[in-house]
Amino acid sequence: MSSSSLELISEHACFGGVQRFYQHASNAIGLPMRFSVFLPPQALQGGSNKVPGLVYLAGLTCNEETFMTKGGAQRLAAELGLALIAPDTSPRGANLPGDSESWDFGVGAGFYLDATQAPWAKHYRMESYITSELLDVVAQALPVDTQRLGLFGHSMGGHGALSLALKHPQLFKSVSAFAPICAPSQCPWGHKAFAGYLGADTATWAAHDSSALMAARTTALFPQGILIDQGLADKFLPTQLFPEAFEAACQKAGQPLTLRRHAGYDHGYYFIATFMADHLAHHAKALA
Amino acid sequence: MSSSSLELISEHACFGGVQRFYQHASNAIGLPMRFSVFLPPQALQGGSNKVPGLVYLAGLTCNEETFMTKGGAQRLAAELGLALIAPDTSPRGANLPGDSESWDFGVGAGFYLDATQAPWAKHYRMESYITSELLDVVAQALPVDTQRLGLFGHSMGGHGALSLALKHPQLFKSVSAFAPICAPSQCPWGHKAFAGYLGADTATWAAHDSSALMAARTTALFPQGILIDQGLADKFLPTQLFPEAFEAACQKAGQPLTLRRHAGYDHGYYFIATFMADHLAHHAKALA
Repeated sequence: MSSSSLELISEHACFGGVQRFYQHASNAIGLPMRFSVFLPPQALQGGSNKVPGLVYLAGLTCNEETFMTKGGAQRLAAELGLALIAPDTSPRGANLPGDSESWDFGVGAGFYLDATQAPWAKHYRMESYITSELLDVVAQALPVDTQRLGLFGHSMGGHGALSLALKHPQLFKSVSAFAPICAPSQCPWGHKAFAGYLGADTATWAAHDSSALMAARTTALFPQGILIDQGLADKFLPTQLFPEAFEAACQKAGQPLTLRRHAGYDHGYYFIATFMADHLAHHAKALA
Repeated sequence: MSSSSLELISEHACFGGVQRFYQHASNAIGLPMRFSVFLPPQALQGGSNKVPGLVYLAGLTCNEETFMTKGGAQRLAAELGLALIAPDTSPRGANLPGDSESWDFGVGAGFYLDATQAPWAKHYRMESYITSELLDVVAQALPVDTQRLGLFGHSMGGHGALSLALKHPQLFKSVSAFAPICAPSQCPWGHKAFAGYLGADTATWAAHDSSALMAARTTALFPQGILIDQGLADKFLPTQLFPEAFEAACQKAGQPLTLRRHAGYDHGYYFIATFMADHLAHHAKALA
């Protein structure tokens, strides 16, 4: 698509850089989509100067604003010279039957995959949207070097970060996650989403399950390591997240993983903000 | 009041400290009130250890969550060993006629004063609530040294910070503000609020107007200086904020003022977060 359809919704000076919110007509989704971008001061020097970027995928019920408002990432991104890019978590405005009845399916819960089942398959194509269309728009319209991209996310977006990085390693040089859904085939959130978007044949699910994808590998895709932070007071940890499954898969595949378990921390953005600096440093090192 | 009526609504580990949200039955307001507290790691060591604290007053339409979610202050507060305390911006649940018809009057718009006019005078007593009741609750229930408090705020809360610090200098050792309403007697927001809460007799307004309060002084109350940051792309600057009035009053009174004008910055929390570290350092120095 042409970047000329990009509409700048709002723009705010922030830490010497700029925080922007965009809308564009998405071909992949077939509906307007919104995303946010933080450009550090280093990206605003004009000329052909481009900065590396991090794509952040948010969790259930969130949108393109959540990370920029609550994550506290811009300060360090400004210091490190990293752009931040955050898409929405699902199509909006499809008005499909039942798309707004649950907080964990449909609107706000796209699960970063391309649905194969009616009626979702027409619009719920977040994998195609992010991995081709959004990155193309960013490459065309913004001073971001899309050859130097990292991917990270939280919860459902942690599943998105790990699974999209494993499916599209050519696109992302580094990956990390906060409290990711590590084995969606095995947890209630994942069951509901995969059954709805991919259908009842569980054989199709493994292609979107980070632990299954990792377990099928015999070499490390990210030799510099994957970083995951997980709070031990996270109420979703026992039933939905299963970091131990991803840990075992990484061990089997020879993929270096730093999985940090933090006593007392829960599933929210106070946890995320606390460890944000470590994630930005992890990516900055890989993208340097 | 007894701290025993304090109800802990939620608690989140955050930067090695803890982010809490409380509710309590307020005698001053006559209704339940909520506030938030961030306690840095230094406050959690047990024993009689107490840390200095900063009270933050939020702007129109905000509540006790806004600053803790969007301000990005906890990281540095944890480093500096400062507690952060943020009350709500008005009574809630009074259900007075017209209290929810405007975003700049009534609910979410208490203006940090004690109303004298019916029907507001019964519940809209934010000055008494903050300066006596809330600080008492904090002193009794939390490891905060209320002899070492700073006060700051944004917009309507910047008016609150400047005016309450000038009215109660014995309570606060330091004061700063982001884009404060500096001369409420002279701007539409202030006119509406003061006429509603204080009545049409404008002679009563000066006692709640920071520029008028400062202009009436002949000595500096805060010899270490007051810090104000103001964005020059703030759409409310020309009609509502009038920092030049407060600047002139400080000059007249001999009050040191650092008023920084920032090209490109607007009225929102991306602006506030950008300069938050400077405000925390300003207060930490005065409270050390």
